[in-house]
Amino acid sequence: MLATVIHAARDIRVETVPDPALSTGADAIVRVVAACVCGSDLWPYRGVTPTKEPHRIGHEFVGIVEEVGADVRVIRPGDFVIAPFYVCDGTCANCRNGVSTSCLHGGWWGSDDRFGGFADGGQGERVRVPLADGTLAVVPGPVGDDEIPGLLTLSDVMGTGHHAAVSAGVGPGDAVAVVGDGAVGLCAVIAAKRLGATTIIAMSRHPQRQALAREFGATDIVEERGDAGIEAVRALTGGIGADRVLECVGTKESMDQALRSTRPGGMVGYVGVPNGGPELPVRQMFNRNVGVNGGVAPVRGYIDELLPDVRSGAIRPGRVFDLELPLAEAAEAYAAMDERRATKVLLRP
Amino acid sequence: MLATVIHAARDIRVETVPDPALSTGADAIVRVVAACVCGSDLWPYRGVTPTKEPHRIGHEFVGIVEEVGADVRVIRPGDFVIAPFYVCDGTCANCRNGVSTSCLHGGWWGSDDRFGGFADGGQGERVRVPLADGTLAVVPGPVGDDEIPGLLTLSDVMGTGHHAAVSAGVGPGDAVAVVGDGAVGLCAVIAAKRLGATTIIAMSRHPQRQALAREFGATDIVEERGDAGIEAVRALTGGIGADRVLECVGTKESMDQALRSTRPGGMVGYVGVPNGGPELPVRQMFNRNVGVNGGVAPVRGYIDELLPDVRSGAIRPGRVFDLELPLAEAAEAYAAMDERRATKVLLRP
Repeated sequence: MLATVIHAARDIRVETVPDPALSTGADAIVRVVAACVCGSDLWPYRGVTPTKEPHRIGHEFVGIVEEVGADVRVIRPGDFVIAPFYVCDGTCANCRNGVSTSCLHGGWWGSDDRFGGFADGGQGERVRVPLADGTLAVVPGPVGDDEIPGLLTLSDVMGTGHHAAVSAGVGPGDAVAVVGDGAVGLCAVIAAKRLGATTIIAMSRHPQRQALAREFGATDIVEERGDAGIEAVRALTGGIGADRVLECVGTKESMDQALRSTRPGGMVGYVGVPNGGPELPVRQMFNRNVGVNGGVAPVRGYIDELLPDVRSGAIRPGRVFDLELPLAEAAEAYAAMDERRATKVLLRP
Repeated sequence: MLATVIHAARDIRVETVPDPALSTGADAIVRVVAACVCGSDLWPYRGVTPTKEPHRIGHEFVGIVEEVGADVRVIRPGDFVIAPFYVCDGTCANCRNGVSTSCLHGGWWGSDDRFGGFADGGQGERVRVPLADGTLAVVPGPVGDDEIPGLLTLSDVMGTGHHAAVSAGVGPGDAVAVVGDGAVGLCAVIAAKRLGATTIIAMSRHPQRQALAREFGATDIVEERGDAGIEAVRALTGGIGADRVLECVGTKESMDQALRSTRPGGMVGYVGVPNGGPELPVRQMFNRNVGVNGGVAPVRGYIDELLPDVRSGAIRPGRVFDLELPLAEAAEAYAAMDERRATKVLLRP
């Protein structure tokens, strides 16, 4: 079968790899209907994190279950499923606490691991899914083709934007600023509106993303960055800063923007993978009572809550996909996202 | 009148200083009934923060109002009042948000400032209180002498321990660990119990403080520190760490202890003034979804909530005072706290 393999920075290839097979009794084999490229896939693509040897890549997909192992109780062949960007059992203490990204028995796509061998990357024709009952979320009933983009966002970006908002404690009437206009930032706008924020400031310089942010519920756009950006946010928030700021990038500059855009007593919810950023300035946080909460988003647990709103059209996160390509053109998908020609690319095997 | 002046590290003197007088119409003059020494006063005492020139010190006191300015509407001569460790107007946007330590018009005791001249330190016979209506909390009715220690804790340590618990989001059924067995850490034990925590782990090596922690509601004591301390906390919390950890020291080691003792998805509430500590390790926090929230505690706003429980005896934070001295012996008060011969010293002018 075909799957995406990263060989080095800016060297993405679609290659023939072995078909996956059931390994443990808890596995399922899923035929991928749609996959996509994550902003975090761009770190190795750009060489920010080194690629020491060629390896499979990708961790967001939806598909149809083809086979299940003998111990699988919930997932059945023929189910349409959403795979979160990690593997989890759904039953350990951390999963029960809602932190399935810290599952005591889980792991990551595309890694050699403890659940029966190699866990395939998500950008391929088929994927062996370990701990299938815990990992996969079933979408009931017939699934229309037009539903695919929205459902696919539940594998990562919509749940991650939601996690930023939940971590920051967004609630009714809040003034929220969103740092980052990538797919996660745009989904954070959706999440902020859904949770009742009434002022939603999207920090973006990109006209198309600004338009999508407004469509998703942003009430204001701030193009400035640094001190000017902070002043602009304060001018929109009674002079003191936003109640909640959602940091959806992960750089030193974006976290600084987020921390200083937050009002005293407010909270930064952050989901951008910290990459090359510094440690957090504790004294600055202390003096202003600005908290920082978030991390690698436990999206599996959010699917149940968000799925009805996606299916009803109450929220339309699938709109973040502005380019669709066949899997064979994965290299172009990476390039388009890297060059910001596309916000988010959907791949069809 | 007499007041405490710090001249240099380990050089605390009680000297004759000018009597305070009303300066602005918003002032009150308070005759101090009791004051105390704060853990943060030990930083200049120990020379960790330099003392460039002699200055007044102290920021926790209770007393009787003697005079008020023409614009004071709430506070009246004869009132028994609690002064928080800072000055605030109670009406600005930050005060209304519950963050009166970031009052747009407030400030700090013992500093030259914007409200009519010098704001006296709190360890003296009398204090000019700027913004009296916002700053001071009135204790209604007759106040018994045995109530003084408990009421005095509301000027700082009880409200600060409470802030750690509130910032960490302590709620019913939580497993809470408290790092620090000073007066604030002990009050954090009280606060955790009051907010419904059912497992309360006090990290302490000091037998008398351990006993007081147990009296306040600690269910377990952990004497170990570092990796051994983290293992001990995990052993008491189902192997994963405490839901909420209250950091009440402010050093590099104590914050590390707190962060690593927290379970994935948990929160550190911190109130120890960061002193010489490093920045926060964002990648470690991100990977485990451990949040950090807190800061300089807005205790003025907590007095209304905590005062009834202090007066009824439902909580007994005044027990943290284990030494009482006349103001004239302030130097011995500092030495006793520095050498950990006393947890908290009450000074009577």
